[in-house]
Amino acid sequence: MAEAAARKRARGGGGAARRAERTSVRVETARYIERKIPNFELLDEEALSVIEAHAEQVLEEIGVNFVNNPPALARWREAGADVDGERVRLPKGLARSLISTAPSQFTQHARNPARNVEIGGRNLVLAPVYGPPFVRDADGGRRYATIEDFRKFVKLGQMSKWLHHSGGTVCEPTDIPVNKRHLDMLLAHMTLSDKPFMGSVTEPSRAQDSVDMAGVLFGPDFVRDNTVMTSLININSPLTFDDVMMGALEVYAANMQACIVSPFIVGGAMAPVSVAGTLVQVLAEVMAGVAYSQLVRPGAPVIMGAFVTSIDMNSGAPTFGTPEASQITFGAGQLARRLGLPFRSAGSFCGSKLPDAQAGYETANSLNMGLLSGVNFMLHACGWLEGGLVSSFEKFVMDADQLGALHKMAQGVSVNTDTLAIDAIREVGPGGHYLGCSHTQENFKSAFWRSELFDYKPYETWSEEGARDTVALAGARVNRLLQTYEEPMMDPAVREALLAFVAQKKASMPDAFS
Amino acid sequence: MAEAAARKRARGGGGAARRAERTSVRVETARYIERKIPNFELLDEEALSVIEAHAEQVLEEIGVNFVNNPPALARWREAGADVDGERVRLPKGLARSLISTAPSQFTQHARNPARNVEIGGRNLVLAPVYGPPFVRDADGGRRYATIEDFRKFVKLGQMSKWLHHSGGTVCEPTDIPVNKRHLDMLLAHMTLSDKPFMGSVTEPSRAQDSVDMAGVLFGPDFVRDNTVMTSLININSPLTFDDVMMGALEVYAANMQACIVSPFIVGGAMAPVSVAGTLVQVLAEVMAGVAYSQLVRPGAPVIMGAFVTSIDMNSGAPTFGTPEASQITFGAGQLARRLGLPFRSAGSFCGSKLPDAQAGYETANSLNMGLLSGVNFMLHACGWLEGGLVSSFEKFVMDADQLGALHKMAQGVSVNTDTLAIDAIREVGPGGHYLGCSHTQENFKSAFWRSELFDYKPYETWSEEGARDTVALAGARVNRLLQTYEEPMMDPAVREALLAFVAQKKASMPDAFS
Repeated sequence: MAEAAARKRARGGGGAARRAERTSVRVETARYIERKIPNFELLDEEALSVIEAHAEQVLEEIGVNFVNNPPALARWREAGADVDGERVRLPKGLARSLISTAPSQFTQHARNPARNVEIGGRNLVLAPVYGPPFVRDADGGRRYATIEDFRKFVKLGQMSKWLHHSGGTVCEPTDIPVNKRHLDMLLAHMTLSDKPFMGSVTEPSRAQDSVDMAGVLFGPDFVRDNTVMTSLININSPLTFDDVMMGALEVYAANMQACIVSPFIVGGAMAPVSVAGTLVQVLAEVMAGVAYSQLVRPGAPVIMGAFVTSIDMNSGAPTFGTPEASQITFGAGQLARRLGLPFRSAGSFCGSKLPDAQAGYETANSLNMGLLSGVNFMLHACGWLEGGLVSSFEKFVMDADQLGALHKMAQGVSVNTDTLAIDAIREVGPGGHYLGCSHTQENFKSAFWRSELFDYKPYETWSEEGARDTVALAGARVNRLLQTYEEPMMDPAVREALLAFVAQKKASMPDAFS
Repeated sequence: MAEAAARKRARGGGGAARRAERTSVRVETARYIERKIPNFELLDEEALSVIEAHAEQVLEEIGVNFVNNPPALARWREAGADVDGERVRLPKGLARSLISTAPSQFTQHARNPARNVEIGGRNLVLAPVYGPPFVRDADGGRRYATIEDFRKFVKLGQMSKWLHHSGGTVCEPTDIPVNKRHLDMLLAHMTLSDKPFMGSVTEPSRAQDSVDMAGVLFGPDFVRDNTVMTSLININSPLTFDDVMMGALEVYAANMQACIVSPFIVGGAMAPVSVAGTLVQVLAEVMAGVAYSQLVRPGAPVIMGAFVTSIDMNSGAPTFGTPEASQITFGAGQLARRLGLPFRSAGSFCGSKLPDAQAGYETANSLNMGLLSGVNFMLHACGWLEGGLVSSFEKFVMDADQLGALHKMAQGVSVNTDTLAIDAIREVGPGGHYLGCSHTQENFKSAFWRSELFDYKPYETWSEEGARDTVALAGARVNRLLQTYEEPMMDPAVREALLAFVAQKKASMPDAFS
């Protein structure tokens, strides 16, 4: 019986073999993107210089607030800043000089060394959505996220070829007490994935827990000398650095763990309504935050972040995939390169409530802009829905599939005797076709990126198969990936130690839900 | 969580007046795009030179076929080409020298002079989908297109602010005899729209009818000296120029009407499977075709076209919005600028059967690439579905809305004292917000592009209103636009003359359906 079936399959020839190959689930992870294409340089030298001069002016004249943080104020005073209450004003040149000790590129280690990522330079590392309190799928609709949802997203991330990073708060596990969530989230990333991950930033003590748990996973000696986490430090724009976020940054920087110092901008609300003004503020904020990280520990790895959306002045809602956000991201990328810092921005941003056409347009606008603006670390690269309120299962795999197109685009165009294909053009000649020519036969397998999700079938086949839209195809893919997921190998002793750490920490304090 | 929470914070504002403004239908047309942003230069000087040298080699060694066209062969012989049967080989430099008489920019006149477009330079003119035999809408599904559908698309084009051009075969009116379709199509463009349009290319005699009808509309004297049509001449890639298309080109060029000389490339079928090889062939084909147009009439306006898709090697289906198509388009744009010719490429390309997320991603990939590659004339800029087999009513208005984002993106970033907004940053200060500050009040109306279609409402409102997806919103917009459409004014004598021309032509020949 099996033989008969195998014979039948064999008769199907190449087509059947390729179909079989496609339906099996591959668990391979692409190497982070190394761009071989130029960045899109939107602003000219003069515009960039003017923006930089104005950012220095903001730091010197207006300054920034470090809130509830006397040690930070003391550090600033000692570094030569003008400290007045909580207001810190930086004389021209101070921030830039402090920033010079921050590395322009660094390695974030994963527990599987094959998954290490290089952040900075011409590289692009892709990480999933971060922060939504809700999840959505086609069956269950929109609902509060749970730790079970969280684990599913980590599994999907582990199974996604084009995703290099497991991320952080892929959704908020609202069924776990606030003061213990970080433990379960870290445990999920550490055990269900072997890709690099992010640490907790919601309390300095939770940042310390993250460092300690990383010590259990990697060994404390390794963590002392190596970056094993990249964590998200949002600036309270405009120009405010609160003690919670700065407390987490202090823990991470002191431990040589990486932070993204990231203005959180809804244009017209947290920054001026103009692109140039937003760039001035973003640059001033990043310079102050990165400079501060180097006061904590010179040489600590830091990424210049820019989370940027515009606002719909009718409804007050943030909007995504808009031209102004693209312009700011292009400009911020140029400013980051001039500062010599890795750059974080862009993502699978959309405002749509559903993974529909609106979501597709908005997301593709953001992803393309992220690739061309020279982003080095793209958080939210898949799964983002409804302005970041929702992590969508279907959109996660849709976006993750599109990330493959970014990989191919970034490879650029190789121009050599083989690719110029004069022999093929001669062989085929006027009026012929290339389907069977030897150049095509030799190259077709790697010539074109193809989606593993989208429908490319003839209309009639597609109709017979139920006329499924992208959401239906994506839902099927989510199920297939979760069904075939296998946990990456882990030393049982390490696993036990991680579980023990979490159990002990949880037992040490009562539940808190706010 | 921080980003989601901050998003909530940003909410607020709103205004009934602004909402009312949005629900009324505006019939204004934006001026064609004048780019104030750089082009994305994917290939370096060396790669471009090598591709150019290889294109010359193709023209010299392999040559092109001019099929069933003895007058063309005679023209080529006289110009110094090596003609062998139908094969035409061009000595190095001949094509480039002939091309030098083609204008790098030209005006296409519309019957409403406010709608004239400048094609070339840093401009981008947007025209709708061209050629599909089917239409689709959410109510009626997919069906053969009729002249009634055709008229509806022309009306939608006339109502679309961001569309500068009425296009040509917005769908194939399959209920009209093949030999009379062009008359009804032209009549629709001429009477239902006052934007510029395209002529017929399916027979040289129909190209002549187009010129004659344009003479009725604009006056024959005006048409003799001015370009009032831009028509699509596809090359039968690889390297073949058939007599029908060349016959149409001959009519248009002789009458100083513009042609797009456009290789029709499905990579791996009509061109080599490699990006560089495709660029070699595209350039060789365009050079031969444009050179030929200048043999017919030096100075005739011509556009370098490149219709490029990759192929799915599993199903043989063409694929859209792929990285290879983007790479070819970026490269072709560079080659067009070096030739000094206007460039046509890109569009609202997608392979999806439905206006769903797949369509959104693929289309946005193509539109963005088109803007950044320096396209001057974007055919198919809205309404394209299912690989060009279908004109979709809903997707027409979705895409047309996104074209607004291209306009804004192309404006670039203005950097001056007002936009740098130092006073606003000082006024708001650390921890404040910009919603009420004077800089925001003065600028918010024009600061951010906003979709007139997408949903930006709070989740609760959106749910109460029926949780509509993009297709549902687009369907409502299609109906609203068609209900409020008004025919642009026209001299009744001209209208009568056009109707008489069509009636006389139709009466002069029996119906033919093939």
